[in-house]
Amino acid sequence: MKTLNVGDYLLHRLQQAGIRHLFGVPGDYNLQFLDSVIAHPEIAWVGCANELNAAYAADGYGRCNGAAALLTTFGVGELSAINGIAGSYAEYVPVIHIVGAPASRAQQQGDCVHHSLGDGDFHHFLRMAQEVSTASAVLTAENAAEEIDRVIAEALDQHRPGYLLLAVDVAATEITVPDAQPVAHVHQETVVATAFAAAAERLLAPAQRVALLADFLASRWQLQSQLFSLRQLRAIPAATLLMGKGVLDEQQAGYVGTYAAEGSSDQVRRAIEETDVTFCVGVRFTDTLTAGFTQQLPAERVIDLQPFHATVGGERFAPLSMAQALAALLPVYQRHCADWALADTASCEEIEQNDDAVISQRAFWQAMQRFLQPDDIILADQGTAAFGAAALRLPPGAQLLVQPLWGSIGYTLPATFGAQTAHPDRRVILIIGDGSAQLTIQELGSMQRDGQQPIIFLINNEGYTVERAIHGAEQRYNDIAQWNWTALPHAMSVQCAAQSWRVSETVQLTAVMEQLMHHRRLTLVEVVMEKQDLPPLLRKVTAALHQRNSG
Amino acid sequence: MKTLNVGDYLLHRLQQAGIRHLFGVPGDYNLQFLDSVIAHPEIAWVGCANELNAAYAADGYGRCNGAAALLTTFGVGELSAINGIAGSYAEYVPVIHIVGAPASRAQQQGDCVHHSLGDGDFHHFLRMAQEVSTASAVLTAENAAEEIDRVIAEALDQHRPGYLLLAVDVAATEITVPDAQPVAHVHQETVVATAFAAAAERLLAPAQRVALLADFLASRWQLQSQLFSLRQLRAIPAATLLMGKGVLDEQQAGYVGTYAAEGSSDQVRRAIEETDVTFCVGVRFTDTLTAGFTQQLPAERVIDLQPFHATVGGERFAPLSMAQALAALLPVYQRHCADWALADTASCEEIEQNDDAVISQRAFWQAMQRFLQPDDIILADQGTAAFGAAALRLPPGAQLLVQPLWGSIGYTLPATFGAQTAHPDRRVILIIGDGSAQLTIQELGSMQRDGQQPIIFLINNEGYTVERAIHGAEQRYNDIAQWNWTALPHAMSVQCAAQSWRVSETVQLTAVMEQLMHHRRLTLVEVVMEKQDLPPLLRKVTAALHQRNSG
Repeated sequence: MKTLNVGDYLLHRLQQAGIRHLFGVPGDYNLQFLDSVIAHPEIAWVGCANELNAAYAADGYGRCNGAAALLTTFGVGELSAINGIAGSYAEYVPVIHIVGAPASRAQQQGDCVHHSLGDGDFHHFLRMAQEVSTASAVLTAENAAEEIDRVIAEALDQHRPGYLLLAVDVAATEITVPDAQPVAHVHQETVVATAFAAAAERLLAPAQRVALLADFLASRWQLQSQLFSLRQLRAIPAATLLMGKGVLDEQQAGYVGTYAAEGSSDQVRRAIEETDVTFCVGVRFTDTLTAGFTQQLPAERVIDLQPFHATVGGERFAPLSMAQALAALLPVYQRHCADWALADTASCEEIEQNDDAVISQRAFWQAMQRFLQPDDIILADQGTAAFGAAALRLPPGAQLLVQPLWGSIGYTLPATFGAQTAHPDRRVILIIGDGSAQLTIQELGSMQRDGQQPIIFLINNEGYTVERAIHGAEQRYNDIAQWNWTALPHAMSVQCAAQSWRVSETVQLTAVMEQLMHHRRLTLVEVVMEKQDLPPLLRKVTAALHQRNSG
Repeated sequence: MKTLNVGDYLLHRLQQAGIRHLFGVPGDYNLQFLDSVIAHPEIAWVGCANELNAAYAADGYGRCNGAAALLTTFGVGELSAINGIAGSYAEYVPVIHIVGAPASRAQQQGDCVHHSLGDGDFHHFLRMAQEVSTASAVLTAENAAEEIDRVIAEALDQHRPGYLLLAVDVAATEITVPDAQPVAHVHQETVVATAFAAAAERLLAPAQRVALLADFLASRWQLQSQLFSLRQLRAIPAATLLMGKGVLDEQQAGYVGTYAAEGSSDQVRRAIEETDVTFCVGVRFTDTLTAGFTQQLPAERVIDLQPFHATVGGERFAPLSMAQALAALLPVYQRHCADWALADTASCEEIEQNDDAVISQRAFWQAMQRFLQPDDIILADQGTAAFGAAALRLPPGAQLLVQPLWGSIGYTLPATFGAQTAHPDRRVILIIGDGSAQLTIQELGSMQRDGQQPIIFLINNEGYTVERAIHGAEQRYNDIAQWNWTALPHAMSVQCAAQSWRVSETVQLTAVMEQLMHHRRLTLVEVVMEKQDLPPLLRKVTAALHQRNSG
């Protein structure tokens, strides 16, 4: 046992959770805690221009690093960030959100202090946070050690945000703390796993056509290498949904493409749906990723692995972690996989060849495919960018960050800042539309302050193209203020080392990409595209959404 | 009775509430309703770059126009806006927040649709909104007419936000609606008012030193002219708190300055506190505006008028509106005011004269005082700007917008956009620090798109000066990314007609101000100031806050 102040103890636990950066915005209720942060040898402070951007940055960092932390101030700061936290909740990213709060005495007295609603109730924002957090605590000197451990453990276990309300005086209080790291949950799942494997074998033994569909939850629970090993045994057809793209090695034999139910190419759809058994690993079917829930995967021929349970032909096994279920499947797979048909990847989807002079969606994504390198981190904002990226074939080690369930436009620009903070040495590529980039543009300044060198492709198609496709193609509400995009990196840094280009012809785009291969600087490429042009997948998806919104 | 679709009915009611603009960001769940907006002859759509900015713009519009409306999309949009709505709640601005939601059937089925948390619960965000709304409704075809009327009426009555969840299909449904405007609440307060007047007279009859302290709630309930009339009878000492600055005519005899308890000048403090009776009209004492609750105004010598009740020497009278209480006071005032001491304004506070060569806070505010004109709308962001503005003497008809209770930095930049939208022909002046402006800079683009011509004084003091003053004067967390401020108007408009200056000497500042008297364009003046320099009031306030956060 030793003594530490609560702030230092919290930082100690964040560090043990693998967190090396704290994103946020200072406010007078968190400044004392920030002194501890600045003094901490292993955790760096990363100031952002506003709190929503900070939450997005933390989320992007969390997707790359496994977990993240965010610091805001009471009321104004935490509420500005809450949409970002909700995204982390919906899409399973463990972000520890620390909120600096007024002094305990002011709270107890119900004082009308700034950043409160003025009504003496200091739990409004806690209740709001609880809607989008897996665990939360109001820290006191008495409960701090226990509650910090509980909230961090639950957030890591559930892969979802945890909320800690830290009053200024509590942060500074010395407490006695346990030396040892809290013991992680150990689930007793052996019996369940055995029953699960037996059920799976009954389904798989007679099967001839078996396919694998993996999604984002497999990525969050870090099953990439387990899936790789399984697929090494037999190159059965394998696909991901857009949200999980990158969890499967797309260069490994058997990979057929991105599955999007009726939005898929015929080859991909049939490879995944026309089977005797389909393994679904960490899959969630979302409207936008299934052209409106058009997937044809009846429970009786699905083995479905979820974070804390599995089903086999509709029969449920719980508690059972995905990792344990995969481990239990391995011997069954080994016994039977020789009988399973190999993937037919001869006619596998490829981005169409083209010779469009202006930069069509076809031309853009074909150029992007050639531009990608192993280990790239690619972020594609909701809209034409994410749906276009669905057709990419990722190089080995490359990672794609998209947010299609929560779907908050503008997310990826600060998330790029977060991803590059997590991996300063990897190449980070952002593809984002002009409408989206306007929401969160400020982090162009933070990237430059920190000497980051991401490559940003800014698709200028004069507004909200994805919404034009759903409704109101020529309506004024889908227009935006027109910016001078290439001037922005310079405007947001007094010592700008960035480079900007504006390209409207395919040859210009490919020439710029060629240059970018050779030296690294923060780069913004404004890519001028036609405002009604859509990637093929998005065309199918938006038709389905229009239908659902009208029906 | 006639038939209208729900969207059109809602617009009809907004128009009747005096709302002529709808701020927001489109999203696929609100596009059908937006068709109604675009088609509406009297309500204009005002697209913003993101939802928080839209909420701030609506708030600024609401403070100038009496009420405002905001449109966002489900989940992502509404949560991005919720900090702005919370500010409207804390500071009593009626903003009707309309949220476009997924189709009723998708909600009933619990579908995993985009912009939901994926758990089938479509009321998470409603519950969050209820923490910061005075009324809310989930609209259906059956309840729409009644619930729209109820929520708008309560929002207007309470001067606080109302929340309407409008599913895409509900917006498009035809309903039968009443022709008549809903009848406003009529409060039966005559008996209470008579008792109140009698109690007030008992306190006032023997009084010799009587003073008036007015605050923001008097401004929200639009009592400016009633207060003016009362003060015409006798020039007793009169002051406002910073939050209510502008509700009293500061050129009228008797005005002594801004009251800030121990943060005030001695003259102001004594004029308001050393009395036999002090009228408080719409006053709320907030930590930042009272140097940490140092006001000395014991209940036994206060007549306190609040929106829905009043107290006299501690005795409570309710229900009683501020307007009715003021009306009841008038004859009492008339009978006794000849005995009350006139304000001593000989030694009244003035902004100090100075001849600082570099632009000190003193020099800046003195120049600003001379720059002001009648009917200006001035916005001053929380920080050095708002606390410096406290010492200004406003010209006739001038209005000041500050947000000191909620205190969300960055608020005023989009609020300037909203204020200028409400009053396109008035001169709008924004004073904002660099740290604050970074949070919400995007609306520079919206202002230019709409041809607005506000004048922006951007105080570049290299970061969060107000926080340096509270804690961590030289800490890195109070630094920000350094921007090229004068390049931003151009970067955020392809057809930029704006002008920018950077000034670091007082003579430059006054020369630029001289030029600005002669022609109107959107103008950004970057005013370089020393990063530790503070207006005198802020120095006192931050010392008090540091004390409270440490204690």
